[in-house]
Parts: sequence; structure tokens; C-alpha cells
Amino acid sequence: MNFSKRITSMQESPIRKLVPIAEEAKSKGKKVYHLNIGQPDIETPESFFKAVKSFDEEVLAYTFSQGIPELIDSFIEYYKKYDINFDKDEILITNGGSEALLFTLIAICDHGDQVLIPEPFYTNYNGFGSSVGVDVVPITTKAEEGFHLPKKEEIEKLITPKTRAILLSNPGNPTGVVYTKEEIYMLRDLAKKHDLFIVADEVYREFVYDGFEYMSFAHLEDIKDRVVIIDSVSKRYSACGARIGSIASKNRELIKQILKLCQSRLCVATIEQIGAAELINVPDNYFTEVVNEYKRRRDVVYNALNEIDGVICKKPHGAFYVTAKLPVENAEDFVIWLLRDFDVDNQTVMLAPAEGFYATEGLGKDEVRISYVLNEEALRKAMNIIKKGLEVYPNKK
Amino acid sequence: MNFSKRITSMQESPIRKLVPIAEEAKSKGKKVYHLNIGQPDIETPESFFKAVKSFDEEVLAYTFSQGIPELIDSFIEYYKKYDINFDKDEILITNGGSEALLFTLIAICDHGDQVLIPEPFYTNYNGFGSSVGVDVVPITTKAEEGFHLPKKEEIEKLITPKTRAILLSNPGNPTGVVYTKEEIYMLRDLAKKHDLFIVADEVYREFVYDGFEYMSFAHLEDIKDRVVIIDSVSKRYSACGARIGSIASKNRELIKQILKLCQSRLCVATIEQIGAAELINVPDNYFTEVVNEYKRRRDVVYNALNEIDGVICKKPHGAFYVTAKLPVENAEDFVIWLLRDFDVDNQTVMLAPAEGFYATEGLGKDEVRISYVLNEEALRKAMNIIKKGLEVYPNKK
Repeated sequence: MNFSKRITSMQESPIRKLVPIAEEAKSKGKKVYHLNIGQPDIETPESFFKAVKSFDEEVLAYTFSQGIPELIDSFIEYYKKYDINFDKDEILITNGGSEALLFTLIAICDHGDQVLIPEPFYTNYNGFGSSVGVDVVPITTKAEEGFHLPKKEEIEKLITPKTRAILLSNPGNPTGVVYTKEEIYMLRDLAKKHDLFIVADEVYREFVYDGFEYMSFAHLEDIKDRVVIIDSVSKRYSACGARIGSIASKNRELIKQILKLCQSRLCVATIEQIGAAELINVPDNYFTEVVNEYKRRRDVVYNALNEIDGVICKKPHGAFYVTAKLPVENAEDFVIWLLRDFDVDNQTVMLAPAEGFYATEGLGKDEVRISYVLNEEALRKAMNIIKKGLEVYPNKK
Repeated sequence: MNFSKRITSMQESPIRKLVPIAEEAKSKGKKVYHLNIGQPDIETPESFFKAVKSFDEEVLAYTFSQGIPELIDSFIEYYKKYDINFDKDEILITNGGSEALLFTLIAICDHGDQVLIPEPFYTNYNGFGSSVGVDVVPITTKAEEGFHLPKKEEIEKLITPKTRAILLSNPGNPTGVVYTKEEIYMLRDLAKKHDLFIVADEVYREFVYDGFEYMSFAHLEDIKDRVVIIDSVSKRYSACGARIGSIASKNRELIKQILKLCQSRLCVATIEQIGAAELINVPDNYFTEVVNEYKRRRDVVYNALNEIDGVICKKPHGAFYVTAKLPVENAEDFVIWLLRDFDVDNQTVMLAPAEGFYATEGLGKDEVRISYVLNEEALRKAMNIIKKGLEVYPNKK
């Protein structure tokens, strides 16, 4: 039996493909620090669980395809804190940010259409694209430049009659980049000039450090019809397992079209929606504490990387990732070596090789993504293991 | 801004599109019996809620993309009751039967490929298909024949080099048909001869009446590599809001391919999975009672339909739907008329016009789907309203 070309050509998750090797290491008694995944260790707010446990209907029925009103309202309230005003007809609740992205791509692209995405990018962008016949065209960014965007002219060269949108995450996964106002205005100008949508994945909106001024694409009044905001409670409230995301846009006709896709899958899990609707009541100091915690972690990782000879890494100002160039021939081989052949006091580290975050063949081979989702002490130990490992790793550049 | 052709051409849900007219009727104080939707009124088993409420992790983390082991195990146990043996590498947990279908279509069809589906069909099959570029080719079935399949030669005429699969629900939504062994063997032969997959949506497996012998496509040993079983806890345990479905196939390579899609959306809602895993412990007499209840309801609806002049409807043996031909010019107009212009003691009925369940233009215009998801008394009242309505409806045939 043959499968479709789109599925067989779909890339395996670069974050997950080395999991068996990590499992092997663990089975031999090694402790593995997982810096390869974006699963925060922060506690999920109690209010989520309280709401879940107070559910007392007798029938767990279908709910509205667009999401339960309480949850939509909570997103509206949440956005107000950022001076963003969305109406209830401008928001759809989705199965995580993942479904939000998939549905948005389907609604704006036909088979063979193109979407520009700064690379390295969240690897699933590629997965969603290829599964629904949308071609990803990468805008290459570089470690040496802190993964900021190239000049307008460079991006403009990539635009064709088939280009339908620019998709990007801000703050960025896997790079931690936070785009400047100038970059955002530049993308706005491109969107206007070339009739493009901007699909802004802003799930890390809270995680911005160093007083860096954050701007949402939803703040761009003059292209509000072109902007689609992808969101999720996963990282914001450390509620990844809830799978609650959203699509928000001032383009109500687009929301109406995407609602047809929402109707086709009936609704999002009811009980998790009820839990998520309560998250709006989490006090603001929750974020102050969480963001301070991540900032300290970022410092641990960034400072440690800077003390290693040959590592290239500009300070990232957002999300909880760093992508760094290592002085190795092949980062995947290094990651495997760390798991199989290296330890410090029987402990080692797992990183995500960055090659899979690039669409351009050959790029990212000597880069890794580090997620700082462990506590400071664990991160210090993990970074020390990487440092010691690089001192003795045989296949260095 | 333009949207994609695939989204603008996507049909609105025929079940939901008349909702505003029903709301209007209600706002005027009319009671509306909803026979238009498949939302059962049966209580969700207590064990689901107990499990949900016992969740005590501090972090609501991502779980396995293929589903939590306890839930996969519970599906394995469940299938054993039907003499179907699936292994843990042969099952994936999905966001309802909906995602199971969408992922299966993506994995077996490229853009422009075709899938044969007996019509009238569950309308979202069309939605899933068009959203991912798969063309639905209808196998027309008729009310007069109880919606059983046409002869093998008729179906064979529809097969082209682009045909990749036969997709069908058994027991059937919206028809209530339960396919005979002969029909199932016929489809098996076609699948073998023309190298096709069979995607069998068996979410109504329990709901078979009158001692009719039910056969799952998973029982076909000689084409086990070609069979994909779509399942869901929604109807079986009246847990529609949980959004827990599954894909099961002895074709492990297919499961491996679809796992890539599961990884791209990370995981299914954790807490609802934990609840669903407990449903396996629901005692068997739960089904006996529920199935008896539905059978009595089916009898109420079927007997009432048979007493109305000009209605064409063979007795359906499964699911909880009847599709009937009414003596009217246009069933949608009749449904709107019932809501707007008719009542018995200020009560009326909402039905689903069946035209939207057909892919062939012009078919189903005089048919409706009736879901018997209300209690017997309510159904009796509702059926009486339909009868009285037809007596005075001005646009009869």
C-alpha cells in the first residue's frame, strides 16, 4: 500500500527523533537534563484545576465550535491588558496554537501557495505546511546577527505571485529573538505593498526580558485586516497539556471562513476550555515572577555559552530558547555523543540539533536549540556538562 | 484580502446553518425539539468525571503525541470485546473522530486524489476532504433501498487511477444503515482488486438493533493492511465534549506515518484523555440499557413516520438517525416553515435538511435527517408535530 507523498516527505520532529537514544542512556542509569523540549517546569495555576474539578454537568456535550463564551471572553480581557481590542466575533478557540496555525494556512492558502517564514523556525510550521500543500519559503536569519531579519530588499526578492503570507513567531522559537519596531514596520510595509497576510504566532508574548519593548502585530491599526494572531495558553500559563489555543483577527470575514473548519471538527475539549477560561484571573504578579525566573535562567545559559570557546550566540531577549552555533562539525552527532559517550558524574544533557529548524539545505548543521525550562541549578549543571563535553569532543571544527 | 478557494468553497454545516432561525423561534417563546443534531441526552458515565477530578499533577504537561498509554490500553481492551486485536503500535489517540479522519485522508491522499463515499454521508467528510484537497466521489444510495449499497459493477464504474480509498460509516450517519456481510465482502473485494484503503468510521458500533449481525471491517483478516478504523468515545459513552477519538490499523507503517501528524500538533488534551481511559471500566449492562433505550426511540420515530402519508423510509437498524423522504417540494423550506410558521401548543421541531449530506447536485432535496436523541415522550410529541405540520404545509408534492 502506498501512502501520500505529502506524508512520506514530511519531516520527523527534530526535537523528538533522538528520544530513543536518550531513553537508551537513561536505561543505563545516566541522568539526562532535557534542554531539548519546550515543556516548562512551572506549576500550572491552581485556578485551572479548580475550575476543571467544579464541572458538574451530567452530559459532557458538544460545545460551540468557536469555543465556549467564557473562554472567548477571557481572551478578550487578556488582550485588553496589551491595549488590543478584539470582539467576540474576532476570536476562535482552537486545539492549541497548532490547530490555529493549520486552520489559518488552509484558509489563506490553496495548494501550491507560498508562505514566507524566517528560518530557523518552529519546525512544525513546515509540517503543517506540507500536510496541506503550502510551500514554506525561508527568510534566512543568522546566529551572528541575533537572528534578526535581513533587509527589506532581501525579503522582497523572495516574494512571488504565489506568496500569500508572512508567518513568524515573536518572541521567536527557536531563537529567542524579539523583533524590533523597525522590523515590524518593515513587515507591515511588505504586507501592504504585496497584498500579504501576516500570521503572527505570539504565544511567548509575556516572555520578554531586559526591558526590551515588545510590539504585537495586533497593534498595527493600518493593516488590521491582514493580521492574524495565533495564541495559546500552553507556555503563558504552563498549561501545555490543555491544548487550548486561539485565532484572533480584525478580519471578521476570515474568522467566519475559518469557523467552517472549526465546525467540521465540532468543538474543542470542553473541560479543558472551562479550566482555561479561569486563567484570566491569575494575578499579574504571577507573570512578574515567572518572567523573572526565566530571565535568570536565560542569564545562566547565555553566560555559560559565552564562556565556551568558539560558541556564537547573541543574547536573546525573549521566549525561553537560545539557538547557538557550536564549534563542532555536526551538532546532531555531538548531541548523540553527549547522550551515548559522555557524562559528568553519570549525568548528561539532551539538546535539539537545529538543522531541522531550517528549510534551507545545509544550514544549522553546527547549531543547537537550548530550552531553558529547568531550574537554575539544573541549568548550571547542564551547561557545565556541555562545556566539559566540548573540551574533549573529538569532532570539533 | 482574498481567502483560499478551498475555504470559500467549503460548505457550511447543513446541521448548523438553520440555527439562527431556531433561535428566532425560541426568542418568541416557542419550544423547539432538536432532532437536527447528534448530541445524545444520555448521562456520561460517572467514572469519566471521577478520573478527571482525581488529576493531581502540578504541571499540566504535554503528553505523548500518540496518546497516553492508559487510554491506548483501554482501546485495546475495548476492541478485544469485539474479537479485534490491536497492538499499542497500531492505535493513535486523536482529537475526536474528526481529527482521525482528517489525518487519515492526509496520509493516504495527495492533492487531487479521490475517495469514494456512499451518499448521503456525514457532511464533514466533504469538509475534511475539501480542506486538504481530496475529492469526494459519491456512491449514491437511496431511501427506497434503505440506503444499502448499489451493485459492485455500479461502484466499480466510479473507480479511477486517482481513487485511493473507500470511506464509510457503519452503522451509518445520517442513514442508520448497517451494512450486511455481503456488502462488506463486496467492498473488500473492490479494495483488493483496485488497491484501495477502506476507512471505516465505526463510532456507532454499539448501536445496532433488531439482532442485526454487525461486522467490523477490522474483522477482515485478508485485507487488514488496507483497513483503517476510525473511532470515538463521543457517541459510545455520550462524551461528545471530550473530543477523544482514535485511528487503528494493522498497517503499522501507516500508523507510523500518521504519528508525524500527531507530533506536529503535539498531543491531545491531557485531562480528557485521563477521563476517557476510565470509560473502559463502564460495565457492559450500560450498553445494554443504552441500546435498548435507543431502540425504543427508533421505534417511536420509525412507526410515526410510517403513519404519515407519502413518507418513504425503510427501517434503519443502527446509529441513532433516520433519513426519510418527505412529501414536500423542498425539505429545507419545510424545516424553516416548521420553525417560523407552525406550532402545536407553541411547540415545534427542528430537523436537518438532507440535501447537504449529498455530493450529487439535486439529490436529497425532499429528505430530512432525524436524530433520535431525545426521550420517548419528547420524540412522540415531536413526531406528532411533524405529522400535523405535513397535514397543513402548503408546498407539498
